[in-house]
Amino acid sequence: MKKTAAILLIGNEILSGRTKDANLSYLGEKLNEQGVRVCEARVSLDIEDEIASAVNALRVKYDYVFTTGGIGPTHDDITSKSVAKAFGRIFQRNEDAVLELEKYYKPADLNEARLSMADMPENVHLIENPLSGAPGFQIENVFVLAGVPKICQAMFDGIKERLDGGTPMLSKTVWCNLTEGQIADQLLLIQSHYEMLEIGSYPSFKKGDFSVSIVVRGYEEDKIKDASKKVSLLVEELGGVYREEDHEC
Amino acid sequence: MKKTAAILLIGNEILSGRTKDANLSYLGEKLNEQGVRVCEARVSLDIEDEIASAVNALRVKYDYVFTTGGIGPTHDDITSKSVAKAFGRIFQRNEDAVLELEKYYKPADLNEARLSMADMPENVHLIENPLSGAPGFQIENVFVLAGVPKICQAMFDGIKERLDGGTPMLSKTVWCNLTEGQIADQLLLIQSHYEMLEIGSYPSFKKGDFSVSIVVRGYEEDKIKDASKKVSLLVEELGGVYREEDHEC
Repeated sequence: MKKTAAILLIGNEILSGRTKDANLSYLGEKLNEQGVRVCEARVSLDIEDEIASAVNALRVKYDYVFTTGGIGPTHDDITSKSVAKAFGRIFQRNEDAVLELEKYYKPADLNEARLSMADMPENVHLIENPLSGAPGFQIENVFVLAGVPKICQAMFDGIKERLDGGTPMLSKTVWCNLTEGQIADQLLLIQSHYEMLEIGSYPSFKKGDFSVSIVVRGYEEDKIKDASKKVSLLVEELGGVYREEDHEC
Repeated sequence: MKKTAAILLIGNEILSGRTKDANLSYLGEKLNEQGVRVCEARVSLDIEDEIASAVNALRVKYDYVFTTGGIGPTHDDITSKSVAKAFGRIFQRNEDAVLELEKYYKPADLNEARLSMADMPENVHLIENPLSGAPGFQIENVFVLAGVPKICQAMFDGIKERLDGGTPMLSKTVWCNLTEGQIADQLLLIQSHYEMLEIGSYPSFKKGDFSVSIVVRGYEEDKIKDASKKVSLLVEELGGVYREEDHEC
């Protein structure tokens, strides 16, 4: 059983280059451990219609959608409202979320801006935020998480058991000091013998030298071992140096 | 005149978490310097129909589209073929691209896998690759770039003059040691006085402490200065410490 997900990263700062996103790679790796494969990601500006239409495009196509960002107390935090719009649901103060905020903030500090973090679509399932109080929420198959990486990660840890996951994809990596052009023809041959596997080739260019990591992915451990052994032998035959690495994504 | 762009990052390795993308933030920042705002990004698996449909969705919506990744010599490099499909164009060997490859590789090294990097949609405008020979290409408003960051960047440097850019967005950043909840109400007030500006609030959480960077973006330098001055005063009034920073994105 293969389960799929999409990630929607929300925020002008990611598209402007100000902020280097760290949530996609984290969620990609951790979701795979749960047997859920991330098949698409999008990055949206802080514009209500853009967010709502991305949520709607993704939630019908994948088993799960995870959004990150835009659920804080400032005026540019419009994710919750946009998700309510996507689902055509009333956007209102969630009393359970208010209780969470009351646990975290002293009464004098719980101003209107902070209370606004409890405004959500109706009928959601809260997602605990152990770091800064304000919860995220789940609405059907869409999980609304914070953008700050540590909070996003803490929220994700708390919802793993809600995911009806499948089989995690396994992988092995063979790094080598050859170039893609040297191995491509015979790598295709290996791929053609293992149709149940995905063999990916990822070049690097560091200090003027090229190298390649070949990643063999799939669901059958023995086939992955066989195929990656063949990749190692190929590198050896071509006079290259290889290093086999276990890799979980 | 405002010009817009979308970025399409192509590759299973970005969605699996194996590779942390570095191209989006680079292109976001450099395109803004050219007066082109990145308004959306997507990340696609190495699947022909997924790539083609993303290209088609984005190229009609934005002035420019930049793809990264999937133009190497291995079997999983299917970007060029997918872009040909998106445009309904014949996919064929480009003789000018072959000449570029012949300049870079010794005849004995120019095997079929490497030659396949010259297979492109018909009628494209090549994009020079000063680092590893194999060119990218421009097809109408879509620019097909390499995924390896240094090559992607070198290719981008070579095509800047092809972009009919607009006015670069300017910005100023005020960092402070307060939390978003403390400044949110009055920040909204400042935003409401400067409708021509976008004021973004970006929290950080490091070593157990929260801080916020407030970024004021827009096209009118004097308004940006005024508004960011107001933000600094707000922080001071609330008993916080601020630091003004010039920031280009």
